[in-house]
Amino acid sequence: MPDYQPVELAKCYRLLNHGPTVLVTSAHAGRANVMAAAWSMPLDFNPPKVAVVIDKATLSRQLIEASGEFVLNVPVKAQAAAVLQVGSESGLQVADKFAASGLSAEPGHTVAAPHVAGCAGWLECKLLRETHNQQQYDLFIGEVISAWADPALFKDGHWQPIADDAKRTLHYIAGGHFFAIGDAFEIAQPD
Amino acid sequence: MPDYQPVELAKCYRLLNHGPTVLVTSAHAGRANVMAAAWSMPLDFNPPKVAVVIDKATLSRQLIEASGEFVLNVPVKAQAAAVLQVGSESGLQVADKFAASGLSAEPGHTVAAPHVAGCAGWLECKLLRETHNQQQYDLFIGEVISAWADPALFKDGHWQPIADDAKRTLHYIAGGHFFAIGDAFEIAQPD
Repeated sequence: MPDYQPVELAKCYRLLNHGPTVLVTSAHAGRANVMAAAWSMPLDFNPPKVAVVIDKATLSRQLIEASGEFVLNVPVKAQAAAVLQVGSESGLQVADKFAASGLSAEPGHTVAAPHVAGCAGWLECKLLRETHNQQQYDLFIGEVISAWADPALFKDGHWQPIADDAKRTLHYIAGGHFFAIGDAFEIAQPD
Repeated sequence: MPDYQPVELAKCYRLLNHGPTVLVTSAHAGRANVMAAAWSMPLDFNPPKVAVVIDKATLSRQLIEASGEFVLNVPVKAQAAAVLQVGSESGLQVADKFAASGLSAEPGHTVAAPHVAGCAGWLECKLLRETHNQQQYDLFIGEVISAWADPALFKDGHWQPIADDAKRTLHYIAGGHFFAIGDAFEIAQPD
């Protein structure tokens, strides 16, 4: 049984709002792929949109442009080595990056692109084609059409207290260097 | 004496790569402003570019569109209450958000927009005007023309070990909820 639950679309930006590094999954014509992307962000609340940078020299880009779909998966610290690996290798050279990295693909719900098992959350996206952005900036915009999260980590629209250090979200720096997210805290809102 | 040093432009993406919430500063015709933005990301390495979402109902947007410049400031945990405040109020209603929040403005180097004192880093940007993105997505793209960092936190292109919890970067969730960044770790790079 997959250990995840649906996330209300109006709250799904909260899976990305704190700036985690993501895994981008894609599929087309029987080929699936996974890559890492440190450069993504929410772009709107409702309907939720996201932006992500996808380099021209990637198989993921070919699959996303052909299928018009992708998934942003929010990985956790336990997956850091695999995230680094799928961020370093290209699906144009490696036949199956899931197998090579040890990441497991599970079926998507509303898209052909798979989910990466063991992540904190998943945003299934439909590509909003913007040729100028894609060509000029490698910038891809998507509308989130369904969202999912591991309820041990994110439930009822809120990140849960972190009980397992290996489940902290990943925040990539450069080289082999990452931050893990720290603890949450609350500030009283201004009147 | 300001406690910051220049950051090599090819490395300045590392100030944003791990997804911190930023303060956006702007100035035009004698008026300066500061707002919070959780939605920003690097967009290119060299020349470095950034993307940031700036809502239409903001003074910052007017100042950025008029001046063609902005600064992304990377605040720290000690500034969280002020970050929340300048993210909740608009310069269209508050005469001086710096004074209201207790944030101090320092002069920029290559732009009229100020730096927020006490941050970890500063990216001075020239707006790359993209009318469709600005109108359709509230999406602003800038080229970083100079970058600066507090050398106690970021030096020689690398984040330094975090000695002071109050100097951790901020990663906004929603409401009054933030994460602080956790500790860095390293994964051996794949062969």
